[in-house]
Amino acid sequence: MKGNILVGQSGGPTAVINSSLAGVFKTAMERGYNQVYGMRYGIQGFLDEQYICLSDYIKNEMDLELLKRTPSAFLGTCRYKLPEIHEDRAIYERIFELLEKLDIEVFVYIGGNDSMDTIRKLFDYSLLTGARQKFVGCPKTIDNDLAITDHTPGFGSAAKYIATSTKEVIYDANGFSYKKKNVTIIEIMGRNAGWLTGASALCKGEDCDGPDLIYLPEVAFEPETFIGKLRNLLEVKDTIVAVVSEGIRTAEGKYICEFTSGSETKDAFGHIQMTGTAAYLADLVHKELGCKARAVELSTLQRAAAHLASKIDVDEAFNVGGATVKAADEGSSGVMVVIDRVSDDPYQSATGVYDVHRIANGEKLVPRKWINAEGDYVTEEFLDYVRPLIQGQYNPMMVDGLPRHLNMHLKNYDWARTPIHQ
Amino acid sequence: MKGNILVGQSGGPTAVINSSLAGVFKTAMERGYNQVYGMRYGIQGFLDEQYICLSDYIKNEMDLELLKRTPSAFLGTCRYKLPEIHEDRAIYERIFELLEKLDIEVFVYIGGNDSMDTIRKLFDYSLLTGARQKFVGCPKTIDNDLAITDHTPGFGSAAKYIATSTKEVIYDANGFSYKKKNVTIIEIMGRNAGWLTGASALCKGEDCDGPDLIYLPEVAFEPETFIGKLRNLLEVKDTIVAVVSEGIRTAEGKYICEFTSGSETKDAFGHIQMTGTAAYLADLVHKELGCKARAVELSTLQRAAAHLASKIDVDEAFNVGGATVKAADEGSSGVMVVIDRVSDDPYQSATGVYDVHRIANGEKLVPRKWINAEGDYVTEEFLDYVRPLIQGQYNPMMVDGLPRHLNMHLKNYDWARTPIHQ
Repeated sequence: MKGNILVGQSGGPTAVINSSLAGVFKTAMERGYNQVYGMRYGIQGFLDEQYICLSDYIKNEMDLELLKRTPSAFLGTCRYKLPEIHEDRAIYERIFELLEKLDIEVFVYIGGNDSMDTIRKLFDYSLLTGARQKFVGCPKTIDNDLAITDHTPGFGSAAKYIATSTKEVIYDANGFSYKKKNVTIIEIMGRNAGWLTGASALCKGEDCDGPDLIYLPEVAFEPETFIGKLRNLLEVKDTIVAVVSEGIRTAEGKYICEFTSGSETKDAFGHIQMTGTAAYLADLVHKELGCKARAVELSTLQRAAAHLASKIDVDEAFNVGGATVKAADEGSSGVMVVIDRVSDDPYQSATGVYDVHRIANGEKLVPRKWINAEGDYVTEEFLDYVRPLIQGQYNPMMVDGLPRHLNMHLKNYDWARTPIHQ
Repeated sequence: MKGNILVGQSGGPTAVINSSLAGVFKTAMERGYNQVYGMRYGIQGFLDEQYICLSDYIKNEMDLELLKRTPSAFLGTCRYKLPEIHEDRAIYERIFELLEKLDIEVFVYIGGNDSMDTIRKLFDYSLLTGARQKFVGCPKTIDNDLAITDHTPGFGSAAKYIATSTKEVIYDANGFSYKKKNVTIIEIMGRNAGWLTGASALCKGEDCDGPDLIYLPEVAFEPETFIGKLRNLLEVKDTIVAVVSEGIRTAEGKYICEFTSGSETKDAFGHIQMTGTAAYLADLVHKELGCKARAVELSTLQRAAAHLASKIDVDEAFNVGGATVKAADEGSSGVMVVIDRVSDDPYQSATGVYDVHRIANGEKLVPRKWINAEGDYVTEEFLDYVRPLIQGQYNPMMVDGLPRHLNMHLKNYDWARTPIHQ
């Protein structure tokens, strides 16, 4: 008889992180594990013995389908960095004591770079002590900045939302262009990696000119050059839409968002919290060029928009979740599941596993050759890479006009007692 | 043989303003009108003789369906206020000269309050001169602030998008709530009328607690009271989501967004351009309460999100467009088509016509009794009114993973000459 599985979610949520959770649960049940425990708020909550039993919430296939369509982290997430083993062994002893108490055989952590760092440390500690648990990472991040894997679950759906919203914003801006120049600046998430920002160009096609300029954090950004380009463009075009990453910075490394706010806030990993890049630039455009300028921040909407999830992404997230359990069940530990692209056309992918030491804390940036020479657009090769990942719809289950989600705190509604009409 | 119809779009675009345009075109063809001309950029472009012939772009039923799903103003829009007749007769002479030149029998203007003002003035002028043209207004505004009509096309789809996005933002915020208080402030369009802001409460239900606080512009907003309420709520809850209208103001009438920016910009109608309300409040919360606070502005996304349009809204917009032509064809002029709610449950509506003098420049606000006593939420009656309008989906036609739109400037793509693979 097999023991139990423990699964956690960590870092920024995505539209499909719960599809991976559903995949973990399904494969665990199919492979005869006893229970799947879910850490509340990742390793941070688990250290306080906060966990649930997933079968209390996923009672049938319908619940599983709802979970796949539910945005954000069903279990709750955290940004919590484990100390190095030599810095604080006590915390590791505590974790492994809890694992034994719950009869955990497999520890799955769904997350990005920082979460893979957690898997790496726990695995290393298990080597030191000979602990029996297997540690497997499940990739997740809208940023698509994980090494080795072709791409990350969460990226495709965010890219689809961004391309769709950019197209809608371009249409909106074009409707107003008569005798009035206007510039719209859309700000996209991605601190160091410009994958999401570049994905906005997917809307360029037969029915849309796409953004006019796209600035990724991989290339230095100079406000003067930007203003100069806009000035030239406005001579031939009334409506300009530029898309910028929240993380664009000057050649000296100063973030554009730092020009606007005096105070810097940092998260638990020491990352600067970004915001206000588009607002700063819109203000600059208005001052320098005198035309109407508007900032649009897609903010958390871009990582939570399950209503526009890509089918490829939801399915891959589910498969990758299942593959973590399979890998552990077949003896792997200290690995992350990766997605290998088998074919571009027709698009096909398969899961594999890879040593987490090669992945943790690494960061996959957009290759310079996939950005044009001027540094203000992505190339066709970039778009050929991203396009397969936004294909297909995973339509929400609509109840009373809105997408229905699975919620741990579902109130106990009772039709017999709740009057339908008030 | 009937003459021609001239149709224009005016004011802020919506997700379904083109569905009304499609309705005008279809009914015009069915009723035997010769041509439907479209003003480019409303009356402003028309004064420069900018117009197109719609049958050059709508060649079949498929084009018509695409047009119904295309956001923003297909024809282009404007914010242009006609002078009073006694102030400048020349401009009226010019317009009617153009109407005669194009053999126009029916003039349809799709827009909100300001656009109905245009219909009113042109109709009044036609009475003065005995001109043969009929002038009919087609209601359109996400703000839902037009008088007499039960609601306006455009409102339902924006409400559906806002409720869906609010739900996604609430889920996102909840995922991070462990040992960390956080406040999210969502800013919604609607300068004086809180219909859209209130619609965010639609996401409250079995699977979502909904926003914690909702502030409409109809009730005076006091920052101190707001901070006090948040302080109390944070004692019992880790995650707070408040939804505010861009137009909230103090009892003295000072807009909250004015606290932040020194400079005021105004549009052609003298309306203050709003932005930054949520950003100002998030900053205030962070300073006063010391917790993480985030601002989310739905900005133009909420009026352009055709990908999440409500079926009721798209269909009603289409019907209302058709009803303008029918009204004129049957002899009406100086009227706006209105939507009458025939039944709440099951929801049924019908179109009617109403004297535009009773509508133009009026503004329908949310009744005080549909806002709770505290002034920080909407009532069940409010939600019962809005809920039918967000029902049903009008799924986009997806091409290569993204919604396809109808574009006047469609490039002449030719598969024989354009290599599929680069």
